[in-house]
Amino acid sequence: MPRYKLTIEYDGRFFNGWQSQPDAKTVQDTLQAAFLKLCKEPVSVIGSGRTDAGVHALGQVAHVDLPKAYPTEQITGAINYFLKHKGAVLLKAEEIDYNFHARFSATARQYTYKIMNRPMRLTLDEGFYWHIKKELDIEAMQQATSLLVGHHDFNTFRSNRCQATLTMRTVDFLTVEKIDNIIHIKIQSKAFLHNQVRIIVGTLKLVGEGKWTVQDVKEALHAKDRTQGGPTAPPEGLYFTKVFY
Amino acid sequence: MPRYKLTIEYDGRFFNGWQSQPDAKTVQDTLQAAFLKLCKEPVSVIGSGRTDAGVHALGQVAHVDLPKAYPTEQITGAINYFLKHKGAVLLKAEEIDYNFHARFSATARQYTYKIMNRPMRLTLDEGFYWHIKKELDIEAMQQATSLLVGHHDFNTFRSNRCQATLTMRTVDFLTVEKIDNIIHIKIQSKAFLHNQVRIIVGTLKLVGEGKWTVQDVKEALHAKDRTQGGPTAPPEGLYFTKVFY
Repeated sequence: MPRYKLTIEYDGRFFNGWQSQPDAKTVQDTLQAAFLKLCKEPVSVIGSGRTDAGVHALGQVAHVDLPKAYPTEQITGAINYFLKHKGAVLLKAEEIDYNFHARFSATARQYTYKIMNRPMRLTLDEGFYWHIKKELDIEAMQQATSLLVGHHDFNTFRSNRCQATLTMRTVDFLTVEKIDNIIHIKIQSKAFLHNQVRIIVGTLKLVGEGKWTVQDVKEALHAKDRTQGGPTAPPEGLYFTKVFY
Repeated sequence: MPRYKLTIEYDGRFFNGWQSQPDAKTVQDTLQAAFLKLCKEPVSVIGSGRTDAGVHALGQVAHVDLPKAYPTEQITGAINYFLKHKGAVLLKAEEIDYNFHARFSATARQYTYKIMNRPMRLTLDEGFYWHIKKELDIEAMQQATSLLVGHHDFNTFRSNRCQATLTMRTVDFLTVEKIDNIIHIKIQSKAFLHNQVRIIVGTLKLVGEGKWTVQDVKEALHAKDRTQGGPTAPPEGLYFTKVFY
């Protein structure tokens, strides 16, 4: 069975997250339904990682084993035909070695979190940013990022529903940039805990508001306790941008 | 009657353009309805310029004379309350001298036209870009822009429905930039003819596709004849970004 690497973009507003579910529309189920139409038999699409409901992806990666070989243009053509009006698109399909595994072969994952920092409500950008009215202190947020880069126990920064047994993770970089009213928070790690990016962003927001000091972030990290971390930032500002192999 | 300068953002997908119409939802009518609720009497909201159905605005400017003075925070608070879920927001209200006229006092207007240049269909960005599948030749487009900058008769580049009596306009700048798959075309002029920006973009696209040479653009301009210009680019890529006074 030939294996294919898939690069997928999706609008998080259309889906109840990546992971297959019996009673909700998910990206994985939607892709599998499209492949069923192409191949006339069920296949499993294995993602590089789950995304929660409302989270967007510009470069999610998955792999799929098909019952027979197809030209990659036929795969993208057919799958994108079946995905029409469903909020997702297959950007690329590539033949790949059977040793490739979308989840286990990944060496780094990148996310961008977008904040619109202005007093007035959003119009065009609604659903694509976390809207924060009060002006955030970017320099303070940037100072706090340095504490979270590197190899740490991120137990404070993971959802109570996180199923990982080990909570040590290595953050390769974490940057905060502001252009006009738009703040971009970019982060890379080999792997993330459940909600890790959104809890980091929620914590940085407390620093940006002046409610927390940089020292408070340090103590939260060292506490290794979810109740000591900031809130989970809403999903609509989060973009899964890239996976490296 | 005190005069106020208004800065307005709107999502073009919600409106049948700026200009008041008896049977369609327009930005001007929507704003006037909101002011009617605030002031309990009808007022006229005068825009810096019309935008067509589907065209977005990040910084449309208008003025309005109100029957009595209001604190500007009360104006933005009340109007934005009445504009909720309507696709528009009042970014700023400022008291302004009675000599100020949103349309006639403007010294420059800026637009950005956004193209997503990639083979695959759009998901998140649908309605916010002109989607062009074939890779455009950016350098050729950039060469063609130089012909259109400066003082020219833009009769070739205006809608048949354009009501202007004079067709000479001065384009201050016209730039084409590409980052990743996204092309931004930025243009500034004191005033534009109807559909001028969209016809310029439609013409530059022909150059980017290799269907037209730079010389063809020159001849089209000199023809002063709409039938010799390129097609009108679709509205969803156009953003009215700024007005200077």
